[in-house]
Order: sequence, then C-alpha cells, then structure tokens
Amino acid sequence: MQVAETLPATEPYVIADRDARGVVRLTLNRPRQFNALSEEMLAALQAELDAVAADPQARVVIIAGQGKAFCAGHDLKQMRANSSQEYYEELFARCSQVMLTIQRLPQPVIARVHGIATAAGCQLVAMCDLAVAAEEATFAVSGINVGLFCSTPGVALSRNIGRKAAFEMLVTGEFIDAHTAQALGLVNRVVPATDLDAEVQRLTDAIVARPAEAIAIGKSLFYRQIEMGIADAYRLAGETMACNMMEPCAQEGIDAFIEKRRPVWAPDK
Amino acid sequence: MQVAETLPATEPYVIADRDARGVVRLTLNRPRQFNALSEEMLAALQAELDAVAADPQARVVIIAGQGKAFCAGHDLKQMRANSSQEYYEELFARCSQVMLTIQRLPQPVIARVHGIATAAGCQLVAMCDLAVAAEEATFAVSGINVGLFCSTPGVALSRNIGRKAAFEMLVTGEFIDAHTAQALGLVNRVVPATDLDAEVQRLTDAIVARPAEAIAIGKSLFYRQIEMGIADAYRLAGETMACNMMEPCAQEGIDAFIEKRRPVWAPDK
Amino acid sequence: MQVAETLPATEPYVIADRDARGVVRLTLNRPRQFNALSEEMLAALQAELDAVAADPQARVVIIAGQGKAFCAGHDLKQMRANSSQEYYEELFARCSQVMLTIQRLPQPVIARVHGIATAAGCQLVAMCDLAVAAEEATFAVSGINVGLFCSTPGVALSRNIGRKAAFEMLVTGEFIDAHTAQALGLVNRVVPATDLDAEVQRLTDAIVARPAEAIAIGKSLFYRQIEMGIADAYRLAGETMACNMMEPCAQEGIDAFIEKRRPVWAPDK
Repeated sequence: MQVAETLPATEPYVIADRDARGVVRLTLNRPRQFNALSEEMLAALQAELDAVAADPQARVVIIAGQGKAFCAGHDLKQMRANSSQEYYEELFARCSQVMLTIQRLPQPVIARVHGIATAAGCQLVAMCDLAVAAEEATFAVSGINVGLFCSTPGVALSRNIGRKAAFEMLVTGEFIDAHTAQALGLVNRVVPATDLDAEVQRLTDAIVARPAEAIAIGKSLFYRQIEMGIADAYRLAGETMACNMMEPCAQEGIDAFIEKRRPVWAPDK
Repeated sequence: MQVAETLPATEPYVIADRDARGVVRLTLNRPRQFNALSEEMLAALQAELDAVAADPQARVVIIAGQGKAFCAGHDLKQMRANSSQEYYEELFARCSQVMLTIQRLPQPVIARVHGIATAAGCQLVAMCDLAVAAEEATFAVSGINVGLFCSTPGVALSRNIGRKAAFEMLVTGEFIDAHTAQALGLVNRVVPATDLDAEVQRLTDAIVARPAEAIAIGKSLFYRQIEMGIADAYRLAGETMACNMMEPCAQEGIDAFIEKRRPVWAPDK
Repeated sequence: MQVAETLPATEPYVIADRDARGVVRLTLNRPRQFNALSEEMLAALQAELDAVAADPQARVVIIAGQGKAFCAGHDLKQMRANSSQEYYEELFARCSQVMLTIQRLPQPVIARVHGIATAAGCQLVAMCDLAVAAEEATFAVSGINVGLFCSTPGVALSRNIGRKAAFEMLVTGEFIDAHTAQALGLVNRVVPATDLDAEVQRLTDAIVARPAEAIAIGKSLFYRQIEMGIADAYRLAGETMACNMMEPCAQEGIDAFIEKRRPVWAPDK
C-alpha cells in the first residue's frame, strides 16, 4: 500500500498497516501537529481509503492517531496562509470527500480514539461506523473559539447525537469526556487506555469472522435507507436482503445453522 | 375474530384475545419454532392486524409471544427450502407490509417482550409504538451470523436508536440486554418478568381512558410528520390539530377541563 | 424594546429585559394563567422575537416564565370560546410561526425552565436551541387528556428525543421529571432551582464571548443541513464554512490562536 507521492517517504502522513486477516490500521502520523487534517494529511487519508476500497482482501479499517492527540481538526496555520474563498471551498470539499468515503467504503471503519478529538477530528469520529474511546479521550467541536463555527463537523455530529447536545457543543466549543460521548451516542465503547487495543480487536474479530459480502451489502444499505421515508426504505432493504440471500455466504450460513455446525466461509473471496 | 383460513383451527399461528374494553392481545403461537415469522405466521399476523384496523371497538393492540422466546425472526428452514430471488423479495415485502401495517394502524401497538427478540423479531419490537420488556429479554439483529445482514430490521432499528449503536448490533450480531435496550430507546420500560403484564396494563389503561379518535388522528400524524421538513411538518400538524379540535371528544374534554370535572367520552363511538 | 401596542402597558404579556452585553430575557408574564399561549401571548412573543431578530446588538435570548409554571400550553378557555376550524388553523399557524421564528433567529435561544412545561409549553422548550431546567421542572404533552392529541408539540418533541419515548408521552399525557428529560435529550442541564440562573448565565457567557456572525452563520446552517441528505448537507456546510472563513471574526480568531493570544472581537459589529 502506497502513500501519496507528494509525501516524504521517511515520514508518511498516514501509516498503513495490514495484518493477514485484512485488518487495516491507518495511523495519522503528525503527532507534533496533533494530526491536523492539513491538505497533505487529507490527501494521504483519501489515498489510503481509496486503496482499501479497491482491495478485496481488506476486511475492516481502524483509524488511529500517533502521539498525544487523536486529531485536532484542520490545520489553522495552513488555512490562514491562504485567503481565497475558493481555496476554502476546495479544502472543505476535500475534507467532506474523505468523510463520505469512510461511509461509502464496503468495509466497516472503527475510530480508535486515545486522546483529544476536536473540530474535524471529532467529525472523523462521528463519521466512522464504530468508535472506541479511551477514558482519557475528550471531544469538542471548538471552531467557534476561533470564530469559525464547526458547520461541517456539525453535519456528522448531528447524525450521531441529539440536537440539543450537538448545538451546545457547537455554540460553546466546550469539551465532553468519553463517558458523556458514549451516553450521547458518539462512541460505542469506553475503556481504560490499556484496554483500548483489546476492545478494538474485539470488534475487528467479530467483523472478520463474518462474511465480507454480507457486511458490504448491509453497510451500503444502512446509510442509504436512513435518508429515506420508511416505506421506500423497506422496499430497498427488502430487495437488498433478497440479493443477500442469493449470495453463497448466506446459503452456507443458513445451511450451517440448520445443520448445527459452524459455517465455512472462504477467508477471502 | 378469525385467524386466516389456511391455518389449522386447533393450533392458530396467532391467538387473538380481546377484552370488553377493546384491548386486543395477539400472541405469536409457535413456541417450539421460537415464534418464527414464517409465511404462515406473517399471513396470520397480517390478517389479525387488518381485522383490528377495521374494528372500531378495538382500542389498543398487545403483541406477545408464546413459550420461551418473543420472536426469533424469519423461518430460516422455510427460507432455505426456497431458492429464487423472487421468492425472497416477495417474503420480505410481506414482512415489511406487516411492519408498516402496525405503524399505520389507528390503534397504538405495544410489544410485550418477555424473552429473546432477534432479527425480524427485534424489528417487530422496534416497529411497535411502545415496548415493555422483562429484565430477561434480550435483543439482537443477528442475521450477519448466518451471512445475511439484517437490512430490513435495520430500517426499524435505526429509527429507534442512535446509528452507532444500531450499526454495532447489525455488524456484530451481538445481544444487548433489556436495560441497554431501554437506555438506547428501543423499549419504553423494563420490569421484572412477574410485573410484565401489570406494566403493559398500565399503558393499556392509559390508552383506553383517552378518546380513540384523538389517538388515531395523532398516531397517523406522528409518523407522517417525522419524515417531513419541520416547516411542512408544522403545517400538516396544525391542520390536523384543527380537525381534532372539531371532534366532539376534544370539545367535551376541554369543557370538562374548564368545568373541573371528568370528561364523559363514549366507551365506543 | 416595546411590547405590542394591543397589550395593556401596565401588564405586558411578555417582559423583555436586555443587559449591556445583549442578553435578552423574555419572561412570559401571565402567572395566574400559567403563562398560557393565548392569542395575546403569542402576538407578544412574536413581536419580541421579531425585535430581537432585527437587533444587531442582541446576542442571546432567554425564555423564562413568571410565577409557578413555565408555560402550560394553549389557552383552552379562549380556544373553546371560538369554534370554527378556520380559527383553530389560524391559531396553530401563529403558534408554529412563533416556534419557527425561534429556530430561524440569528441568536441562540435558551429555555429557562423552572416549573411545569406542558403541551405547547413543552414544545417551546423543545424548539429552543438550548434548555436548562430546575430539578422541580416537569414536562408533558398532555393534550390527549382533554381529547386533543398534541400533534404540533409532537413535531418539536420527536426532533429532540427518541420516537418511542415521544410516542409514550403523547399517548399517555404523563409527566416526566427533569432528569428524565435530560437523559432523553429534551434539556441540556438540570440544576437545583437556586442555581438555575447561574447555569443559564454560564451558557450566555459562553455565547457572548464568541463572535455573533459566526454563531448566526452556524445556527442557520445547523437546522438547514439536518433536514438534508448527508452529501447535500456537506456541500452546503462546506460553502458555509468557506464564507465564515472570509469573515473578519474568523481571521482574527485564527491569528490570535496562532499567535497564542486572546482574540479581539468587537463587542458589537
């Protein structure tokens, strides 16, 4: 797996690791910049996600951060060094593209949040399908503190948590702790930092043990149906499940269930 | 009230009981099959719901399950015995029709969940207007365990609980307990099993004490407005409340309130 | 700030206070009528909100209630004294207009809930951007108790809390306490009554310390994007943030952040 060519080979913006089971770990790697989503970081993340999308062996993605922070959002210095509205529109469009790519990926994506996640970093957590946080992790959409309301992070946040809690975070810029984030629905699990990788692995184990085709079909449907009226959602979901039933993985899975044995699914199609 | 003619008279798929107040209890009655939603069960449930819809004396519906489980979802053996995509599309369409009938019924529908509710059984809980669970009840959308992502149950689940929790349940297939289900928003109340019927009755008592016309008007509006933009939702809701005000039940109710007396509503219109 | 001319000068329906920082407090002032949303109260509230919308010095709005109750919803006596569907349609349209004005206001609106909030009073809480409640506060959408399903309050309520909890409140008319309201997402904070104003002030302090332009841009976007599909929402949010970046407040805010100093924002533009 290659990082984008514009990045120095010695210090990639994103470190991609993949184990034999297809668990891909993408580590944001600008710890001194708190893994800010600079142009370069966004390009690297987009390239890695595109590579995963095209890789039938990849089964699940973990997004992690190197250093003290998970991700502190956009690179304000780089943003301020540019000054045209066109530049900003392009920047936010690229960032939104990364976020939508996560949701459109056939594989589930898990945010592994060990430290602070602010602004577009909090958005990144919200856009992942699943999120596991260390007890020390904190979350804020703090752009308003510098006069820049977190409008794009709000898109993701308001689709994870209730609107009064989301509005409070957006308008005050204040941090919430990990347990509050879990109670609100922003993260699935909160564990001591020492258990963070074990808890993430519990989820990746569950995912790789189940057939990739069914997960890809289901994930895609999940985000499409959620934007529809319920009658249309059921129509599309019913057709999707009928297609899923015609897949060998479902036929083998149900046969195994009826015969009271473990299903035998090819480790990679 | 009759069960569909194709069912053996001695062992109906759904047992329908109705008390003098119009409380209709529909009990899924294939305990050895964990009340699986076979073709026959779906047909029986559809027939009973259609009968309730047409019955002006019926005031509230309770959906319960006979035996150990509440409902374990589709009948996998029957599904596997058929193999065409058309068959599956038709099956899921019928199941979705049952689910939408619950939501479109003029009467409120309460799920009485005493045991496991999995896959389309969990969907059934999610589609009811209200749900009361025993502490022993557990919930899962476990299709992924047999290679069949619970896409149609996900339609209902994602309209009850936050999307990260819904996605986790769908992709891992894991069970949640009753208290977790309540915290997430899938059920209204959790009580010891011995109090389950009393707690359901508390809700049915509240419903039958209030006028059927107002409830029918309000339930229908509730699910329509929820799919609209807020300005359109207010327009429709305002017109609906104006109609509700013209009903004798509202005029009597408000008069009684002003005169500090109990309203006298006809027990059946 | 003036109350509408049709109101008696000695006893305004809404008392408007504004401090030097632009914190506007609107106090519903019919304590003996539990601050019912009569035609006159709605007109007064609409007038005050319109005045705030047009006032560039106003930074945040607090909605409070005089006397024992926060707000007990519509004025049932006045409603019953009229009897045409046209009258009711007009009344609900006016009420909805007040509610939508709150959401469309450039300034954040905080409900300060010290006592009961029922029917359209509960709707008022739900429509505010933020809500702080005293521990004694209680909430209900109790129209069904008089045969009038709270259809318009349900529009607001179902956009704050999960649909099973919303449906239960609407169909039973029962009260929930302040802590339950917070757990469900209807209010942001619950404090002892003696701390209510301090807690509201904590929020208003946070808001007035941040630039009005950015908050106005962000609030408007927040409620528009929430009704869109996610791709369209990101498109609009990205354009909005690019515009926000071109504002002097964001440029000063980011410069101050880079230079590790406090931003200097004009107290009023």
